[in-house]
Amino acid sequence: MKFSDWLTYIQQRTEAVLEATLPAAGVAPDRLHEAMRYAVLGGGKRMRALLVHASGSLTHARPEQLDHAACAVELIHAYSLVHDDMPCMDDDKLRRGKPTVHVEYDEATALLVGDALQTLAFQVLAESPASTTASGELEVIRLLAEAAGSRGMAGGQAIDIAAAGRELTREELETMHVHKTGALVRAAILIGARSGEGVSEERRRRLDQYAKRIGLLYQVVDDILDAEADTATLGKTAGKDAAQNKPTYVSVMGASEARRFAEDLLAEAIDTLAPLGGRGARLREVAEFIAHRAF
Amino acid sequence: MKFSDWLTYIQQRTEAVLEATLPAAGVAPDRLHEAMRYAVLGGGKRMRALLVHASGSLTHARPEQLDHAACAVELIHAYSLVHDDMPCMDDDKLRRGKPTVHVEYDEATALLVGDALQTLAFQVLAESPASTTASGELEVIRLLAEAAGSRGMAGGQAIDIAAAGRELTREELETMHVHKTGALVRAAILIGARSGEGVSEERRRRLDQYAKRIGLLYQVVDDILDAEADTATLGKTAGKDAAQNKPTYVSVMGASEARRFAEDLLAEAIDTLAPLGGRGARLREVAEFIAHRAF
Repeated sequence: MKFSDWLTYIQQRTEAVLEATLPAAGVAPDRLHEAMRYAVLGGGKRMRALLVHASGSLTHARPEQLDHAACAVELIHAYSLVHDDMPCMDDDKLRRGKPTVHVEYDEATALLVGDALQTLAFQVLAESPASTTASGELEVIRLLAEAAGSRGMAGGQAIDIAAAGRELTREELETMHVHKTGALVRAAILIGARSGEGVSEERRRRLDQYAKRIGLLYQVVDDILDAEADTATLGKTAGKDAAQNKPTYVSVMGASEARRFAEDLLAEAIDTLAPLGGRGARLREVAEFIAHRAF
Repeated sequence: MKFSDWLTYIQQRTEAVLEATLPAAGVAPDRLHEAMRYAVLGGGKRMRALLVHASGSLTHARPEQLDHAACAVELIHAYSLVHDDMPCMDDDKLRRGKPTVHVEYDEATALLVGDALQTLAFQVLAESPASTTASGELEVIRLLAEAAGSRGMAGGQAIDIAAAGRELTREELETMHVHKTGALVRAAILIGARSGEGVSEERRRRLDQYAKRIGLLYQVVDDILDAEADTATLGKTAGKDAAQNKPTYVSVMGASEARRFAEDLLAEAIDTLAPLGGRGARLREVAEFIAHRAF
């Protein structure tokens, strides 16, 4: 399948699984369920779901095996966006071209939406095994929880809050992003590989190197886009990092250096895939897709 | 072991497991980890942990088998308190005799503390199996996620928000509490019984009847205490339900009728345990302990 067709195919599958997993808007409590659906459905590139499926293709996992894991990772991502947009965090009004959840509903509902989406992610994994064995499933849950928790994504948000208004070195910026964005991106890749046939220790190590570079690449590209694209293109408020005086790769390195850094990360990510041969094709294509948003 | 000794023994065990499970305050990001420990440690009756252990005694589960499940349930409870106390929810300043997390730290930190505590609950279960089999462990995770999510505890909070300032019937009030408090109390009991030896379908059915009554009993007693005790005794702001115009069992039924309802629930809960004989002793004692807070 051509990459652009595969992209649409996985995005549509993911949307369908999310749609079926989220409680219907008519199920009580109605308003909460309606807001959960508002937060998750009908938007987003589903980048983390693409990574789960691309990585799963490495172990010949069938898409049906990967759907629930992809859904769980996207639910964690969606919860983090809802909470991150709240007034006590980034106070953002626009997300995926629509008013954010606390603007469309209210703050209390946004808080509960995020809370309930996180729970649902773990419920999905416990109810609809992504792995063929129960012990494999526990490992998937462990990978997702480690990535989302205080030493992963939530920890990255805490570092982000503490950094606002401060000058960060490039190393400090990287530490923040390794946690804030990188941890969940890495988990998506490792979880995908955990499905299907087993993966050798050597391949797992390579995947992890790939995953770390993709996590950073994703963030560098995001910073470039935030600085250069307009709000309509992004579907979220453009230039907000500069407005909130937040350190980014563009503010720390300058735009052209950030762009060169992204090119290097892409090249390195593709290099790590070389020994995997044809099986790594989707992972290479996804890396290029992420990078080319900014090129 | 005498009940009062057992109570102290389980509370101390639970505190020790929570202490060991929470990242040390010196681990980065420091402030987040310090606030997570502030939110969880050094307070609380650990009622849900007591229920896990009391129910586990029914299946001859050893305390070491139950520690992690008890810890996970308490972490979910602690996260819900941190978020519930935030300004956009109940806006409470005092909890367990100390300033609430958003008062002691800040709102963004309180949001992330709750988020990370929820993740940690699932991480604990995935890493330190409470059940002897991986499939049993997945069932424990499923029970906890169902109880915590939008059709359980988080859903109850959503009903609670929608109810503020409205008159509720006794049935509506019960629906709210079955979700808000009852779901997690019930999960604690079912999770405890899932450890140790298996439990027959008939016993599980009885346990579930017991669990539903204990969940309601707990809330009725809470409402009586909120209306009648003072802030120093409660360790949280007394009379806040009335001040916030929130419907409670006392406001809907009157104090003496609420007290009679609690007595009935206690008697019914103890009745459901009768066929379990001596093995149900701890569950009976915990029921009496919960009820007698208000008697």
